Amino acid sequence: MLNYVHEIPTKLYFGKGQISHLDEILRSLGKKVLLTYGGGSIKKMGLYDTVIDILKKGGFEVTELSGIEPNPRIESVEEGVRLCKENNIDVILAVGGGSTIDCSKAIAAGVFYDGDLWDMVASYHGTLKALPLVDILTLSATGSEYDGGGVITNLKTHEKIGNSYTYPYASICDPTYTFSVSKYQTASGTADIMSHIFEGYFSRTEDSDLSDHIAEGVLKTAIKYLPVALKEPDNYTARANLMAISSVACSGIPQYGKQDTGWPCHAMEHELSAFYDITHGIGLAILTPRWMRFILEKDPSCTWRFVRFAKNVWGLDGDDEKALAIAGIEKLEEFFAQSGIPKNLTELKITDEHFEEMAAHANDGNYLKDAFVALTNEDIVEIYKACL
Amino acid sequence: MLNYVHEIPTKLYFGKGQISHLDEILRSLGKKVLLTYGGGSIKKMGLYDTVIDILKKGGFEVTELSGIEPNPRIESVEEGVRLCKENNIDVILAVGGGSTIDCSKAIAAGVFYDGDLWDMVASYHGTLKALPLVDILTLSATGSEYDGGGVITNLKTHEKIGNSYTYPYASICDPTYTFSVSKYQTASGTADIMSHIFEGYFSRTEDSDLSDHIAEGVLKTAIKYLPVALKEPDNYTARANLMAISSVACSGIPQYGKQDTGWPCHAMEHELSAFYDITHGIGLAILTPRWMRFILEKDPSCTWRFVRFAKNVWGLDGDDEKALAIAGIEKLEEFFAQSGIPKNLTELKITDEHFEEMAAHANDGNYLKDAFVALTNEDIVEIYKACL
Repeated sequence: MLNYVHEIPTKLYFGKGQISHLDEILRSLGKKVLLTYGGGSIKKMGLYDTVIDILKKGGFEVTELSGIEPNPRIESVEEGVRLCKENNIDVILAVGGGSTIDCSKAIAAGVFYDGDLWDMVASYHGTLKALPLVDILTLSATGSEYDGGGVITNLKTHEKIGNSYTYPYASICDPTYTFSVSKYQTASGTADIMSHIFEGYFSRTEDSDLSDHIAEGVLKTAIKYLPVALKEPDNYTARANLMAISSVACSGIPQYGKQDTGWPCHAMEHELSAFYDITHGIGLAILTPRWMRFILEKDPSCTWRFVRFAKNVWGLDGDDEKALAIAGIEKLEEFFAQSGIPKNLTELKITDEHFEEMAAHANDGNYLKDAFVALTNEDIVEIYKACL
Repeated sequence: MLNYVHEIPTKLYFGKGQISHLDEILRSLGKKVLLTYGGGSIKKMGLYDTVIDILKKGGFEVTELSGIEPNPRIESVEEGVRLCKENNIDVILAVGGGSTIDCSKAIAAGVFYDGDLWDMVASYHGTLKALPLVDILTLSATGSEYDGGGVITNLKTHEKIGNSYTYPYASICDPTYTFSVSKYQTASGTADIMSHIFEGYFSRTEDSDLSDHIAEGVLKTAIKYLPVALKEPDNYTARANLMAISSVACSGIPQYGKQDTGWPCHAMEHELSAFYDITHGIGLAILTPRWMRFILEKDPSCTWRFVRFAKNVWGLDGDDEKALAIAGIEKLEEFFAQSGIPKNLTELKITDEHFEEMAAHANDGNYLKDAFVALTNEDIVEIYKACL
């Protein structure tokens, strides 16, 4: 079990109607609010009107930044920082999913950043001085509501970079706000949650039982409730469990005491999104089982971990370890397929054109040498090709 | 899944050698330190000297409060508050187990409390204004290193009352500091951790899968590593896993979204400690299986929860639900017995003399009517009697 330092200053308000706390939360932080959101979904479901009503009644001064992209771009960060400075913003209120929250984190830190904002994104500074950020979550996926990180995209340079900016001061997590999330986004979001677990679960650390058990618990919860949410979008229990695992998966607790693997699937997926602007969770769901099969073949000494996955997560059993490991991966593939996730990159009209460039970038100077199974650029190209 | 609000501002420094951060942590909080500890164990193991050395080198002004009792008493809180006021203390550094940390929390809040300190303990105010508190944990048990609560005893009035004071600013959790913990205290501490889980796990909430899985993960970790720690006191992996579950069990996460049961075993045990000053975890280990058998008999509609416990925690199986439920309880009894925990209250020289008074107090005006299975005073007396 390795050393760790754990701190999450965010206050989670979880459950139906927790927006009733919004006024008191914002009031403690200031008067001038930058309201950030993405497309029209929060308007369609009436949440925008509810929020505006609370802000008006509370006498807050509101500036809006709308249209934040699904893979949020540096231009939105720049625009947000400009608005904050121009309007002396006290607090940012992000209403949306991980993209809106990620972008708002970068804005919150960008206000205090001296220099080019893409430099801030591209160079690691650790958590930065930032404006306070409050969010209202509308998608169970990235865990951005409960961590300090954000991922920003530069489409000009084909770069998508995750960094640490600031923790939300408070996150309002009301599962009813996810009732209207489409099947596609629900499945994609759950794949993202599961990937956050996989990235830590598949490590060489053998003796961190607590975090392994918690990781398995998150996965079993996802596997139980994604099909329910797809069938009954208004099922509160299903939406609530998916929302709870979104936060816990990124809390650091399922990774307590374990080797940092460099998050290989995220590294590989960020290239897909940066080059093709695809939905993050979909990219992960396509990549993950291929990565699993590849590393199992490349380094059979990791078989024990796949055996544990097959047994503890899928309830499988058997004497042949290799067969059991593969059976666990097959269950995962079936699960994603049954959730309506595209089966391969070809369906997303992605070809092998940029694979070598993407692999070099994902592996950024041999970055993935410390992954669960070390990956070379050639390995990554092979994994990409298996996704076609 | 019920609503919840979750926030733990404490920064956990987990692992071997994390005391290297002590100077920088204290430095950010002030110069004048109240060092609190219990008996001589921290001196025996050399930790006292290490801490004093760091404090001296750092130029801190140190006042000491030693001799904090295993069930910390109001007199120690009063003495601590007096020392803080007299010496203009900036920060409290608690070195020890839950008792020392609990007492230090009450001191930290007591400094700002206008009025009688036993009134502060006995009336619920929620988390209070308090001096910053840093702790170095030496016993995996109460979870006080990662929550806001503390339990203080008044031996004159036979009262032992848990309340909410303040969260530690930082907790240094180095498993090597528990290498010298006796078998008896190791077993007792683990029973306490498991009880924190039982109190939330045995609830009527059926749809909070994530917290149930996490709860089961904590229990399985305890069951795996307590025997290892008893056999090999210096086994780092065992001590580390027990220390990690100590914090997680009290983090609120294994209780996310679940009915608050009023923690019946803790309510009953606090009376045992208040009247007989016994070790908290030992009292819990004796009470818990008797409580389980009693409620299973009183209200068979709770059988499903015991079946889940038997299956998911102990890996048992079978068609007869009642038999399965009882088999799970028997496994727990065996586990405690094999860990060297006294089998009954008679071994602790406790008789039925005060059971009615204790039951009335534990049930404080029908407090346990909302327990997993509601308990009357008569029920509680019966459970106590079954412990003889």
